[in-house]
Amino acid sequence: MTPDEFRAAGHRLIDWIADYRAGVASRPVMAQTQPGAIKAQLPASPPRSPESFDTIIGDLDRIVLPGITTWQHPQFFGYFPSNALLSSVLGDYVSSGLGVIGLAWQSSPALTEVEEVVTDWMRQMLGLSGAWSGVINDTASTSTLVALLCARERASNYSLGRGGLQEESQPLIVYASAHSHSSVEKAALLAGFGKAHVRIVPHDASFAMRPEALEAMVMEDARSGRRPCAVVATTGTTTSTALDPLDALARVAKAHHLWLHVDAAMAGSAMILPECRWMWEGVEHADSLIVNAHKWLGAVFDTTLYFVRDPEHLVRVMSTNPSYLQTAADGRVKNYRDWGLPLGRRFRALKLWFLIREQGVDGLQARLRRDIANAKWLEEQIAATPAWRVLAPVPLQTVCVRHEPAAVTGDALDAHTLDWCGRLNQSGEVYLTPAVLDGRWMVRISIGSELTEREHVANLWRLMRDALDS
Amino acid sequence: MTPDEFRAAGHRLIDWIADYRAGVASRPVMAQTQPGAIKAQLPASPPRSPESFDTIIGDLDRIVLPGITTWQHPQFFGYFPSNALLSSVLGDYVSSGLGVIGLAWQSSPALTEVEEVVTDWMRQMLGLSGAWSGVINDTASTSTLVALLCARERASNYSLGRGGLQEESQPLIVYASAHSHSSVEKAALLAGFGKAHVRIVPHDASFAMRPEALEAMVMEDARSGRRPCAVVATTGTTTSTALDPLDALARVAKAHHLWLHVDAAMAGSAMILPECRWMWEGVEHADSLIVNAHKWLGAVFDTTLYFVRDPEHLVRVMSTNPSYLQTAADGRVKNYRDWGLPLGRRFRALKLWFLIREQGVDGLQARLRRDIANAKWLEEQIAATPAWRVLAPVPLQTVCVRHEPAAVTGDALDAHTLDWCGRLNQSGEVYLTPAVLDGRWMVRISIGSELTEREHVANLWRLMRDALDS
Repeated sequence: MTPDEFRAAGHRLIDWIADYRAGVASRPVMAQTQPGAIKAQLPASPPRSPESFDTIIGDLDRIVLPGITTWQHPQFFGYFPSNALLSSVLGDYVSSGLGVIGLAWQSSPALTEVEEVVTDWMRQMLGLSGAWSGVINDTASTSTLVALLCARERASNYSLGRGGLQEESQPLIVYASAHSHSSVEKAALLAGFGKAHVRIVPHDASFAMRPEALEAMVMEDARSGRRPCAVVATTGTTTSTALDPLDALARVAKAHHLWLHVDAAMAGSAMILPECRWMWEGVEHADSLIVNAHKWLGAVFDTTLYFVRDPEHLVRVMSTNPSYLQTAADGRVKNYRDWGLPLGRRFRALKLWFLIREQGVDGLQARLRRDIANAKWLEEQIAATPAWRVLAPVPLQTVCVRHEPAAVTGDALDAHTLDWCGRLNQSGEVYLTPAVLDGRWMVRISIGSELTEREHVANLWRLMRDALDS
Repeated sequence: MTPDEFRAAGHRLIDWIADYRAGVASRPVMAQTQPGAIKAQLPASPPRSPESFDTIIGDLDRIVLPGITTWQHPQFFGYFPSNALLSSVLGDYVSSGLGVIGLAWQSSPALTEVEEVVTDWMRQMLGLSGAWSGVINDTASTSTLVALLCARERASNYSLGRGGLQEESQPLIVYASAHSHSSVEKAALLAGFGKAHVRIVPHDASFAMRPEALEAMVMEDARSGRRPCAVVATTGTTTSTALDPLDALARVAKAHHLWLHVDAAMAGSAMILPECRWMWEGVEHADSLIVNAHKWLGAVFDTTLYFVRDPEHLVRVMSTNPSYLQTAADGRVKNYRDWGLPLGRRFRALKLWFLIREQGVDGLQARLRRDIANAKWLEEQIAATPAWRVLAPVPLQTVCVRHEPAAVTGDALDAHTLDWCGRLNQSGEVYLTPAVLDGRWMVRISIGSELTEREHVANLWRLMRDALDS
């Protein structure tokens, strides 16, 4: 494809995307396709000869679109908002179009330096002190793995340079809560700690980790000859946006030399609002921190911000320096390959740079405030309605809800919950995520799509009540 | 930004990218900027109010472009070709524009099913049997980490479900060669094996791993109470595209129950040419395999293909299943979150789908054959010229070269090499990567940019000789 062919095809594609985005509200939210239906329409083998761009774009309409769940729909209340604001999309288009790869600073200096600047913008927007340094990773899962690897290496005095975890005589222990994201246990297992060395710290009635329970477990492990290594605290858990008390947890961590990793993947976006920062009071005492800019904030996936207080330690754990990656600029520049797992990197900073500039901090703040107010409104409606219950505090934009008809309990209640939620999702009108809280299914309503106004939330609430009668 | 604003801005950006790509040959190959020069032009703090798209696109010209190394330049001979063909870029544009995220199959069925089909197309194109299943990861580094984690868990009978590596009594050992990519040692250290348990297997005169040396080391480790776990073999090493003898290595791996991981990140693309497949004869006996479609083949970064023969084992090592990710379709669909490290995933399959369809297998094959012929031609020119030496076999598109003036040896020869190569890179006319081979610096010439024709290679050869006189 020549640049001129790209120009022609690119213009058509821009229109296609613009039309898609302009029409999201009229599409089903959840894809209405059956397992295997898309695969069945695709040739089993690759084409020998080139196909026309007309054919390809035609297949987007015919095959791909019916299999797309509409994440930007104003009535998308599932998982988490992934807004992929269009300015951020354009930043990503520049990245792909330039086709540069970050390996060393020299392999594209702008890729590194814009990332340095934009991650520092984000640090300021989140109200973090200058003691933090940031890097853009793909996802929270990967970043939490990096955090636990760094914790492991600090606690073991860099065992990777010796016999690894295999020759440590006293096992290292990781602490999390039952409401930590699934990626925390996954990271601990992949980092080699082993399930027997992952402790689930009890939580309180608001689903927040109990610091005194953490301390008791840490002391018991230490007494038994094990080595407490790391605690993962969450600001805004996945299920209910519960807030682990960072300040108190940080005191335990400090007293017992634990690495404190803060998972603010979802709720971190809200820290651009000064009135929300009480939620992670104590964050300055953490060692590492993640915020997914590709969720509520609005960057297109994948844009996870990973902040650390000791970048030299991070680099010591992650660095490699083969001859073919050395350049004359080394020592005077950042080489982000030494800040995470992958060697190569996309010019991800552009999607954040475009987003922040096109929206301005004021614009981003105004949208998040709207969403928090909408969640508060919904919480009030539900709480005031007989047989409906709000199951957890609503500090942000997620409402955990259950309809509890008289005399329906236990497994029957679970069936009732999954039934009305499933029917709503199948209808294509709204999308919600069921989840388990305190051993029973309930429904999470995650508000924060760019297009979601009060009327859409009100409509959701009407549909929820209607679903009981259908 | 509304869809209509996106439409207007998007058209401008398409033209901007088309102009950039049309003009790559007239730009400096290596960015001519100094450390810190780009950062110095950016505001230290984020804007409070929105900025116009005019301002942003103006900054691309003024600030970003001078800091870009031109990877698609016809005289880019550095690192590896990263062609980011424009059809693949358009596929990526669809992915970003749709803004969908793969978490479960249901969160966008097409994302999963197109990936299933396209990875199977790639399997067929590479001449692999139907026993392989593929997934798209970000990079080779991450994929090799996944491979070594899978090896660790197979050898330890899933220690992650018990005490992890921390309670294994006999240490597990990983084998690689000095010419394995730096990501192999990094992965082994991060997976917890420890440097003391990574063995460097000697190589022969063509820089290929010696199977009998591997076997001797394995037997010695076993005799000493250690457990041989995995060997990483390379089809096309980074420095010289050396070919480890997979067939013989696979026999050793099988006899001693080693996991065999094949790193064909760069050279794997050439396996779409039937005449090249002798290079990885024996690959069918491997357990895992990586091919970077974002290198020579032409997909835009990041598009690493990770193939395994036992996907159930992969899923057992990587899976998580919290309530909020469960859907009614589970059991009937693939959930790619259980195939690697990250939970969320982009619709990466589109960039490969667009590329393969727009080029056709014939088109991709023709371009790779051109590049191999160009490398052969350059090898012959260099070999026939006094004082110039080709230092390694040239099975593919990488030529390792040194100019060796009479009586210049040792450190003086290193200085001479880095001097002429550095001056060529600084000139902006060509870009080459110096690297160390057998303890001395030499220069790698990696041919395969989409725009690189014979004339550009001839021009490079002229510039190399001219550089000696300047």
